[in-house]
Amino acid sequence: MSAARTTSLRLADVARAVGGTVVGDGDVVVRGISSLDRATATDLTFLASSKYSALLLESAAAAVLVTPELVDTPGACRNRVVVAKPHEAMIALLPMLYRMPTRPFTGVHPTAIVGEGATIDPDSCVEAYTIIGAGASIAKGCWIGPHCVIGEDVTVGADTRLVGSVTLYPGAEIGPRCLFQAGVRVGSDGFGFVFRDGAHQKIPHVGSCIIESDVEIGANSTIDRGSIEATVIGAGTKIDNLVHVAHNVRVGRLCLFAAGVGIAGSTRIGDGVMLAGQVGVAGHLTIGDRAIITAQSGVLKNVPAGETWGGFPSRPQKETLRGYAAVTRLPDLIKRLEKLLSREPDA
Amino acid sequence: MSAARTTSLRLADVARAVGGTVVGDGDVVVRGISSLDRATATDLTFLASSKYSALLLESAAAAVLVTPELVDTPGACRNRVVVAKPHEAMIALLPMLYRMPTRPFTGVHPTAIVGEGATIDPDSCVEAYTIIGAGASIAKGCWIGPHCVIGEDVTVGADTRLVGSVTLYPGAEIGPRCLFQAGVRVGSDGFGFVFRDGAHQKIPHVGSCIIESDVEIGANSTIDRGSIEATVIGAGTKIDNLVHVAHNVRVGRLCLFAAGVGIAGSTRIGDGVMLAGQVGVAGHLTIGDRAIITAQSGVLKNVPAGETWGGFPSRPQKETLRGYAAVTRLPDLIKRLEKLLSREPDA
Amino acid sequence: MSAARTTSLRLADVARAVGGTVVGDGDVVVRGISSLDRATATDLTFLASSKYSALLLESAAAAVLVTPELVDTPGACRNRVVVAKPHEAMIALLPMLYRMPTRPFTGVHPTAIVGEGATIDPDSCVEAYTIIGAGASIAKGCWIGPHCVIGEDVTVGADTRLVGSVTLYPGAEIGPRCLFQAGVRVGSDGFGFVFRDGAHQKIPHVGSCIIESDVEIGANSTIDRGSIEATVIGAGTKIDNLVHVAHNVRVGRLCLFAAGVGIAGSTRIGDGVMLAGQVGVAGHLTIGDRAIITAQSGVLKNVPAGETWGGFPSRPQKETLRGYAAVTRLPDLIKRLEKLLSREPDA
Repeated sequence: MSAARTTSLRLADVARAVGGTVVGDGDVVVRGISSLDRATATDLTFLASSKYSALLLESAAAAVLVTPELVDTPGACRNRVVVAKPHEAMIALLPMLYRMPTRPFTGVHPTAIVGEGATIDPDSCVEAYTIIGAGASIAKGCWIGPHCVIGEDVTVGADTRLVGSVTLYPGAEIGPRCLFQAGVRVGSDGFGFVFRDGAHQKIPHVGSCIIESDVEIGANSTIDRGSIEATVIGAGTKIDNLVHVAHNVRVGRLCLFAAGVGIAGSTRIGDGVMLAGQVGVAGHLTIGDRAIITAQSGVLKNVPAGETWGGFPSRPQKETLRGYAAVTRLPDLIKRLEKLLSREPDA
Repeated sequence: MSAARTTSLRLADVARAVGGTVVGDGDVVVRGISSLDRATATDLTFLASSKYSALLLESAAAAVLVTPELVDTPGACRNRVVVAKPHEAMIALLPMLYRMPTRPFTGVHPTAIVGEGATIDPDSCVEAYTIIGAGASIAKGCWIGPHCVIGEDVTVGADTRLVGSVTLYPGAEIGPRCLFQAGVRVGSDGFGFVFRDGAHQKIPHVGSCIIESDVEIGANSTIDRGSIEATVIGAGTKIDNLVHVAHNVRVGRLCLFAAGVGIAGSTRIGDGVMLAGQVGVAGHLTIGDRAIITAQSGVLKNVPAGETWGGFPSRPQKETLRGYAAVTRLPDLIKRLEKLLSREPDA
Repeated sequence: MSAARTTSLRLADVARAVGGTVVGDGDVVVRGISSLDRATATDLTFLASSKYSALLLESAAAAVLVTPELVDTPGACRNRVVVAKPHEAMIALLPMLYRMPTRPFTGVHPTAIVGEGATIDPDSCVEAYTIIGAGASIAKGCWIGPHCVIGEDVTVGADTRLVGSVTLYPGAEIGPRCLFQAGVRVGSDGFGFVFRDGAHQKIPHVGSCIIESDVEIGANSTIDRGSIEATVIGAGTKIDNLVHVAHNVRVGRLCLFAAGVGIAGSTRIGDGVMLAGQVGVAGHLTIGDRAIITAQSGVLKNVPAGETWGGFPSRPQKETLRGYAAVTRLPDLIKRLEKLLSREPDA
């Protein structure tokens, strides 16, 4: 089931909370938020684009958040809150209407195991069966879920949450306000070997793994530690599920990596870079600030700042799209070309 | 080692069990099942296609399941059971010859932690170190393996098995007869942010995650919860390892997703859809019933029901194959074309 | 933070340890290893290629490992150790300067649960909350980290390390000197179903999963068990994070699989094969010894020994590269071609 609904709001209160204006009945009561086609008579819904205007016609919602331009869109639901950005308004309302995840208790669960010299701020929560290694430190406001394994000398900044079943290898440095979903592994050995004496000899990985502040990492994603230096994820970067970041990679601030992305060793990713789903980036490259790489692309060259690249091997997206279009037309062109060439005896 | 062999069967009993007919000695005894080239003198083997007939010549098997058409295939092994579908017969025999996984006990292991108000059917098994959140319910016949974390208010239907180290986020709804392999995460937060005030602000995810009946999910796969509504996996759908299903995705019944598949947010997948290995599907699309997407394809457009698409960007497979073929011939054509164009002064 | 530094070395001792020759002050002391641009006054650094010579100019390092050819490269750092392979020398020095991971204790942690008939060599370590199934055996020198689930009848060879949160399904056979990173799943059910009576019927998987000696498996990777026979990973093979190996796959010795690789069922991979990042290999194929598959490629045909293939569908890399080059030139060629064809009335 969805998160529990915690309260109800009069539409006038909704408008006040989001800085909007009521059109219709300000006393109508909403208890949850839903999309136009699924909303019931106690739901607030939202209309931010005329593309979805038709859905308002039949929506059963109690009220609708709507832009000034769309306030007169026809629809059964006559109670409206006019607001510049309905989607952002909805996000602001969610924590008012639904129960947000909160720490179940303060302190350390009796089944948690805490190593020698570890320091755990009293205003933090360590759930059942979690292991905190010797010398580790957990700052104020943290919520360390169940079944985590936190290695020796790990530091976790204030207000960070590990949802559960997360592994932080020894020495990992986690900033404040991070959120790691279940199954995240941070600081695993990088994939480095030298072939000698008939075998792949392992390169010991003594580098660190630094996750700066406000980083989210999705379920079952993996971030390797550096070989002799650090793997770094910059502040405010958000990483989706099943993403791989290899050793020595340095990721800037405010990046977005969608699910299935893989980044090979020692690559530098700038600030504000967006990697769409299943993108792969080769090792020892530089991806400039604010670059965008489109889905499933394979990047084998440096990408300049601000550019959108795609395809395999990745090129500026415009060129790649022209290539796709050309390939689409190719079979017919080949037919015509062969006919032509057949008439040219020596071509 | 393989699963333990539990018994032996006379060939006559094998034939009876699968509705087949003995040719040769019905008293010969088999203790296990193996392929033609690896079978030993106590093994049953199978031959379902003339492609493998040569392997029967030297097979050491005690007996062979064989189709009526292939019953006279030459081979050392003269004891045969004639049956229409040898492969299906073999599947039926496996549980008779090998020990199938079974619950090690009934009840709740003393190290499991059960939250307030959780209900666990007495005819179920909760293994060591598993945590069941407050208000959760575990139905009759379930087998919850070790090290699972089941959140508050989760419901698990009858006869479902979580192999172990599985995370079910709060509120997840799991149907009956599901099977989740190790490391599965169900109900993790979707990857949703809005950029505001210089940062990616998290969109709270209050939607649910609904897994209907008879769903299998492979090791370390992740299914995100919905943002305000539900992520749904339809009844009878089977999902392989390391698959990602994003928030708000709705998957129909009886689909098959191979390993490494990723589905972006809010996409609708029909019934009976097959996604081959490492396929990516973009967000907000509709994939029609019984569509097939070939391996590693990237789907950026809606796919009509019943069609087979492939490539990147995905198109009907026939067109994609023509494109591959054309690209293969392209380098030589370019050579000939350039020669031709070089003779056309203004081309 | 990085692994702890354990000692300091005089440069003369460094030279002795790696079979090199001191140029400059043999009494200078180093405490760690770092790259040219990040080294501080107590660090040893290395220069193995003239490509990086400029970085030596300003490096603050105490000393540098350098090849005979580069010994006279200008730079602030005048203390040098001349050695044929600086990178290998560095790897040899790491365990002398940094603390390597070591077992925290010998024996079985009191919270570990050991099944009936399991044998655990007294010279091994089983950490907290790990579960060892009935009949399993753990050999001498093993280090089984916390939160592992080791199924019934599993065998683990000498000196193998499971970092933690690893699942070994019942019957898995793990060789000596293996290293599995966090979240590895070995022996999960393969993805096999037959469609019958309107549903995907599960094929019981009774085969085994055999990991030979000296295999490393990266974080959150999954290796499925065989259906009726074995999935095998050959000795000395190294597998990166988030890799999927399906049922019945047989992988040879000394292979390298980069992150995100997926191998479908029953494929045979030879010895010394390299699969680059995000490569997919279809089922029932044979990849010859020492073949190399380039990043993100999709292999749909057998690959002969010793060849380098790439692209989708994969072909010999030379042909694939020619195809990419041709597609790049295609849009302009099409323009010229259309102009030409427009003058040919019936082309």
